[in-house]
Amino acid sequence: MRFRLKRIQISSGGPMIAVMNISDAAENNLHRGDRIELIKGAKKAIAIVDTTKDALLVPEGWLGLNHELSSKLGQSGTADAGLIDKSHSLAYIKKKLDGKELSEKEFLSIISDIARNALSEIEITYFVSACYTHGLSNEETAFLTKAMINTGDLLKISKKFVLDKHCIGGVAGNRTTMLAVPIVAAAGYTVPKTSSRSITSPAGTADTMEVLCKVDLPLGKVKKVIAKTGACIVWGGALSLAPADDIIIRVEHPLGIDAYGQLVASVLGKKKSVSSTHVLIDIPYGQGAKVKTKARAEKLGSIFRYVGEKIGLKIFLMYSKGSKPVGKGIGPALEARDVLYVLRNDPRQPLDLRKKSLEMAGKMIEMTGKKNGFAIARKILDSGLAYEKMVEIINAQGKRHIEPGTIPLGRLSYEVKAHRSGAIQAIRNDIAVSIARAAGAPKDAEAGIYLKRLEGERILKGQALFTVYSNSEARLAHAKSICKKLSKEFYIIK
Amino acid sequence: MRFRLKRIQISSGGPMIAVMNISDAAENNLHRGDRIELIKGAKKAIAIVDTTKDALLVPEGWLGLNHELSSKLGQSGTADAGLIDKSHSLAYIKKKLDGKELSEKEFLSIISDIARNALSEIEITYFVSACYTHGLSNEETAFLTKAMINTGDLLKISKKFVLDKHCIGGVAGNRTTMLAVPIVAAAGYTVPKTSSRSITSPAGTADTMEVLCKVDLPLGKVKKVIAKTGACIVWGGALSLAPADDIIIRVEHPLGIDAYGQLVASVLGKKKSVSSTHVLIDIPYGQGAKVKTKARAEKLGSIFRYVGEKIGLKIFLMYSKGSKPVGKGIGPALEARDVLYVLRNDPRQPLDLRKKSLEMAGKMIEMTGKKNGFAIARKILDSGLAYEKMVEIINAQGKRHIEPGTIPLGRLSYEVKAHRSGAIQAIRNDIAVSIARAAGAPKDAEAGIYLKRLEGERILKGQALFTVYSNSEARLAHAKSICKKLSKEFYIIK
Repeated sequence: MRFRLKRIQISSGGPMIAVMNISDAAENNLHRGDRIELIKGAKKAIAIVDTTKDALLVPEGWLGLNHELSSKLGQSGTADAGLIDKSHSLAYIKKKLDGKELSEKEFLSIISDIARNALSEIEITYFVSACYTHGLSNEETAFLTKAMINTGDLLKISKKFVLDKHCIGGVAGNRTTMLAVPIVAAAGYTVPKTSSRSITSPAGTADTMEVLCKVDLPLGKVKKVIAKTGACIVWGGALSLAPADDIIIRVEHPLGIDAYGQLVASVLGKKKSVSSTHVLIDIPYGQGAKVKTKARAEKLGSIFRYVGEKIGLKIFLMYSKGSKPVGKGIGPALEARDVLYVLRNDPRQPLDLRKKSLEMAGKMIEMTGKKNGFAIARKILDSGLAYEKMVEIINAQGKRHIEPGTIPLGRLSYEVKAHRSGAIQAIRNDIAVSIARAAGAPKDAEAGIYLKRLEGERILKGQALFTVYSNSEARLAHAKSICKKLSKEFYIIK
Repeated sequence: MRFRLKRIQISSGGPMIAVMNISDAAENNLHRGDRIELIKGAKKAIAIVDTTKDALLVPEGWLGLNHELSSKLGQSGTADAGLIDKSHSLAYIKKKLDGKELSEKEFLSIISDIARNALSEIEITYFVSACYTHGLSNEETAFLTKAMINTGDLLKISKKFVLDKHCIGGVAGNRTTMLAVPIVAAAGYTVPKTSSRSITSPAGTADTMEVLCKVDLPLGKVKKVIAKTGACIVWGGALSLAPADDIIIRVEHPLGIDAYGQLVASVLGKKKSVSSTHVLIDIPYGQGAKVKTKARAEKLGSIFRYVGEKIGLKIFLMYSKGSKPVGKGIGPALEARDVLYVLRNDPRQPLDLRKKSLEMAGKMIEMTGKKNGFAIARKILDSGLAYEKMVEIINAQGKRHIEPGTIPLGRLSYEVKAHRSGAIQAIRNDIAVSIARAAGAPKDAEAGIYLKRLEGERILKGQALFTVYSNSEARLAHAKSICKKLSKEFYIIK
C-alpha cells in the first residue's frame, strides 16, 4: 500500500508515529500500537500506527507523520507502507511461551526486532512473560546477553584492564559508584561507568551525578571524557548501548518483573558494550533489599559468573547486607553532598558510605591482581587524589557544582524528632524510600531526607532524627503525613 | 495533579486519549499507553496517556483531549488527574503469572479493571499470557466467565427457552447461523444471536448478514427486533456485552493465542449476557480447522459443559468434520447469496450448507425436549416459513438486500480451470481462506471465491473449478498469483 505523506503538529518526545485514517487501518487489519515499515526512496523508518477518524487531519490514503517521523522521511511525497516481517520472531516468542528453550539465533531474531522497534508492546510483553514464567537457562541467558550486545552501539576501548562495577540496587543512598570510580581511576585504571536514572528509588547514580555535572552525553563525547580522565559517570540511557534492554525494562516495570536471567543479561550486556574486562557485581541482600536471602544472592551470582565467562568478562562478586540505607542523604542533591563530603574528608561525611566505597574500590583494584586493594583505595582517598580525579571528571562532563556548600536543597523542610529515648536498632530502607519520593525525589533533585542519626547511636526523646526537604508544599505535606504514620517503624528505637 | 484542559483536533476512532506534555509525564512517571483517571466535577473518564514535547500543542500543566475524551469532559476548564488504583488487579495478575490459581473475587477485580479501561495493553498481555502458560482450571474458567458477564451490559429476556448457537469457527463458508436462526425462530423460539466480524477469515457472520441488512444496532434497538420477530442476527461488537472479552481477544491476536479456558469464557459470557438458556456449541475438528483432533474437540466440549452448568446455561455439543469449506461462496456477498438460495429452495443452493444448517436447527429445536428436530427444521425450511422469518428479521434490522440476484459481486473476476480430469478428492479450507482474503474479503464485501465444483464430483481437464471476484485490480492480481502457485493443492483431483 502506498500513502501520501503529510506532517502533523505532534511530537511524541521519542517514538516515530504514523497516524492513519481508521478506515485504512481497518482495511489493513492494523490497530493503534502496531508497527509498519515506511519506505520512501532510500529512506526507511519503522513507525508506530495511530488511528484517527478525522478525515481533515488524515484523509484516507494519507499518513500523518509526527515530528520525529517527518524529520526522518520528510513532510510530503509518498511512501510505501509494508507490514514488517517479524513472523520468525513471533514464532520464537510463541515457542518460548510454550515452554521450549530458544537457540542463539532465535534470541538474536527477537532482540534485533525489539531493537529496531518492529515489535509492539503486546508482543514484547509476551516475550518477557515467557522468559519470566518458564525461566531462562544459563545458556539462554548468555544468548540473550550476546543478542543485546550485538544489536546496539559499542564504546571501544583497547586496554588490558577496563574496570567496572554494578550494584543490584534496592538500597537507599548507597552512592558508592561516585566514590569508587574516581578512586579506581586515580589508581590509573580505565572505568567507563554508565549508570541508570531512578525508576522506583529516590535517586539513581545518574540523577545524583547530574547534580554535579552533565550526564546525558552522546557516545563521542563520552569517549573524549574517558580519553582525558580515564573514567566517566554518565547516564546509559542517553547512549544506544543494548537498546533492546531499555525497551524490555520498560515493559517489565508495570508488574515489577525482575527475573534473574533478564537482570543478568541487562547488566552484563551494557558492561560488555563499553568494553569492560573486569566487573565487580555487588549484590545487597536482606529484608527490604531486592534480593531477600544470601542463598538467592549466591544463585544470582552464579548466573553472573556463567554468563560473564561466555561473553569474555571476568566477574567478581560481593555480597553485602542491604537492609538499611547507606549514607545520610537520600535524594539526588543530598546524596551528591554526601559523596563530596567523603571525597573531601569532611567531618560531616557518613562513615558507612566511606567504608563501603573503599571496600568496593579495593575489590575493583584487586581484580587486576593487586593485593591490599582496601589500603590502596584508602590512601588515594585520604591523599585527596580521588577528589582531584572527581573534579577532573566533573569538569570534563560539564561542571555544575563541586562545592558541597553550594548545592541547593529544597527550600521547605520538616524535622522529625525521636518519640522516645533509647538506642536506634534499625532504620528501614523501604520507608526512607517512600518518604523521599513523597517529598519529590528524584524529579525534584533538591528533595529528600537527611538522616541525622544512624543505626547503633543512642538518642534522647525530642532530639532530631531526620529532616525532610522539598520545594513543594503539597509534596512536603504528603511526606509529613507518611512520617506521622510511619516514623516509629522507620526508626526503631528500643 | 490538576491540569487545564484543551481540545486537540484528533479523533482516535475509539479510545479516549489525553495528550500530556512530556515533562509532566516524566514528573509523574507516566508513559505512552498508561492510564489516568480524570475527574471534572461530576464527570469522570479513564484516558490513555499520550505524550508530546510540543509545548504549543500541549503546554506543561495542560492536557490535550482528543475528540472522544473532550466529548465526555468538555473542551475547557480544569480536571484532577489521578493514578488509577489497580494495585489489587496487578497483584492478582502477578499471582497468576507465578502459577497460582485465582479466586472468583480476583478474576472479578482484573476483568472489571479491563472493562473500565484501567489496565494498559502491557498489563492485559501479562494476564492473557499467565492464563495461557499456566492454563485455567475449569473452576477458574467459570470465575472468568462470570466476571465477564458481571462487568458488561445485559439483554434481559424472560422466556423458558432462549435458544442460541455458536460455532468455534475456522471453516470457510459455513454460514449455518443465518439459516438455523430463522428456522428456529419460525418454530416459535426466541434466538438472540450476536455474531462477530471476521478477524482472520474472509467473512464472519456479522460481515455476511451486513450484506443483507444493518447489523450494528444499539442494545435498545436489538431488544425491539427480538420483541417483533423473536430473533436477531447482529454484530456483538456494537453492544457492550462482556466488553473485557473484546479487549482480551485483541491482545490475543498478535500471537494467535487461543487457550481453551479463555475461549469458553468468551463464548459463554456473551451467551449468558443475552439471556440465552440453551446453547448448541458446534466444534468442527480436523486438519485445517481450529481444533485438530476429535479428542481435543471433546476436551474443549467438557469445559463448555462444566462452565455452562456453573452459570446456569444448558450446553449441547456437536462435533462436525471441519477440514473443507461448507457452501459454495466464500466472502460476505457470496456467502449471503448462498444463504438466500437455501432459504428460497433455489436450485443453485449448496446442499452441504443446507444439510449442516438443518442438522444444527434440528439440534437446537431438540434442546427444548422435542424429538425429530431435523424433520421439523426441514419442514419449516421447505415450506418457506424460514425464508419469511428471515425477511421479517432483515426488515426489522434495516433491509439492504433480500433478492439473491440483486446482491452485487466484485466487478472483476478470474476463473480457474481444472489442470486434469478426475475426481475431486479434497478442497483445502486454508487455501480458500488465503485466496478470498487476497481478493479483498471481508473489507471488500463483494470479493471472494465461488466454488463451482465440490468435493466428490468428477471433472474434465479445462472445466471451470472456481471463480475469484474482486473490485481491485491489484488485489485480483494478488489472488491470481496465489491461485497459480496453489490451485493444484487447493483442489486435489485424482
